[in-house]
Amino acid sequence: MDDTFSILGIDPGTRITGYGLIRIKGVSIEPLDFGCIRPPPTLPLPERYRIIFEATEELLERFQPKAVAVESQFVLKNAQSAIKLGMAKGMIILAAARRKIPVYEYSPKRAKLAVVGNGAASKSQVQRMIAALLHLPKLPEPEDAADALALAICHANSIKGDSYV
Amino acid sequence: MDDTFSILGIDPGTRITGYGLIRIKGVSIEPLDFGCIRPPPTLPLPERYRIIFEATEELLERFQPKAVAVESQFVLKNAQSAIKLGMAKGMIILAAARRKIPVYEYSPKRAKLAVVGNGAASKSQVQRMIAALLHLPKLPEPEDAADALALAICHANSIKGDSYV
Repeated sequence: MDDTFSILGIDPGTRITGYGLIRIKGVSIEPLDFGCIRPPPTLPLPERYRIIFEATEELLERFQPKAVAVESQFVLKNAQSAIKLGMAKGMIILAAARRKIPVYEYSPKRAKLAVVGNGAASKSQVQRMIAALLHLPKLPEPEDAADALALAICHANSIKGDSYV
Repeated sequence: MDDTFSILGIDPGTRITGYGLIRIKGVSIEPLDFGCIRPPPTLPLPERYRIIFEATEELLERFQPKAVAVESQFVLKNAQSAIKLGMAKGMIILAAARRKIPVYEYSPKRAKLAVVGNGAASKSQVQRMIAALLHLPKLPEPEDAADALALAICHANSIKGDSYV
């Protein structure tokens, strides 16, 4: 039986959506790809969400992950930023739902705990630890991509999270 | 030149998404269809958003509206409810963006003002006024459908709103 599978971690946002794909093979974790989706800020908002949706679809098609891990947030500055975040997150969830790929949610604290062992770790601590865990030649950039890799690793470590399902 | 066109008003929500379609022909406004999308609450959230997306796609295909008017909200109980609302709203915006249909936003206050002439009108006042304006045989139900019709009428009256574009 082939026990190899991949996980897509994703940190949604209207301006920057970080993503990170890892492959799990027994006890080893390898990086497959990471980066971010940055819709041009000059485009109308609906076009920007369309770009996030289509870029997520492309990642799901290309890597066929077994699961998607997204960031959950509970505190936000105001209703407008929460609604915008929800719209970006909706794009990820829809792209996954259309392919019957389950979506799991982890808080930033839980993802940091999984990677650094400290729920209050700084962004740069997360970057350094991810680089070490995945044997990357340099720190993963931007921070959003590192956060997405942390979400994927968090899901790999716990396999059952606060499932959206 | 044919000056007839239709507008889809939509009041997104994870539990109930009200919709209302009107046809504008010169100065007359006619109802085409209204109702609501209610994904079964027992389904996983991603499936519920998929249903909202696909039902919106169906409405856009069937009626080919020239514009979509959605409700904007600025005050919400908490970040979680705002994110959920954003995800539902994202489904509407994506369905429209994929068909190059422009999306406009109106506050509930502005929609009430357009229909009742009073931004603080009650739900039942909105329902009664919509029934009168559109010559409906009875009050539009549920309230969410009446709110969606109010958004469509609001857009018809102002044609340029706080465009999302």
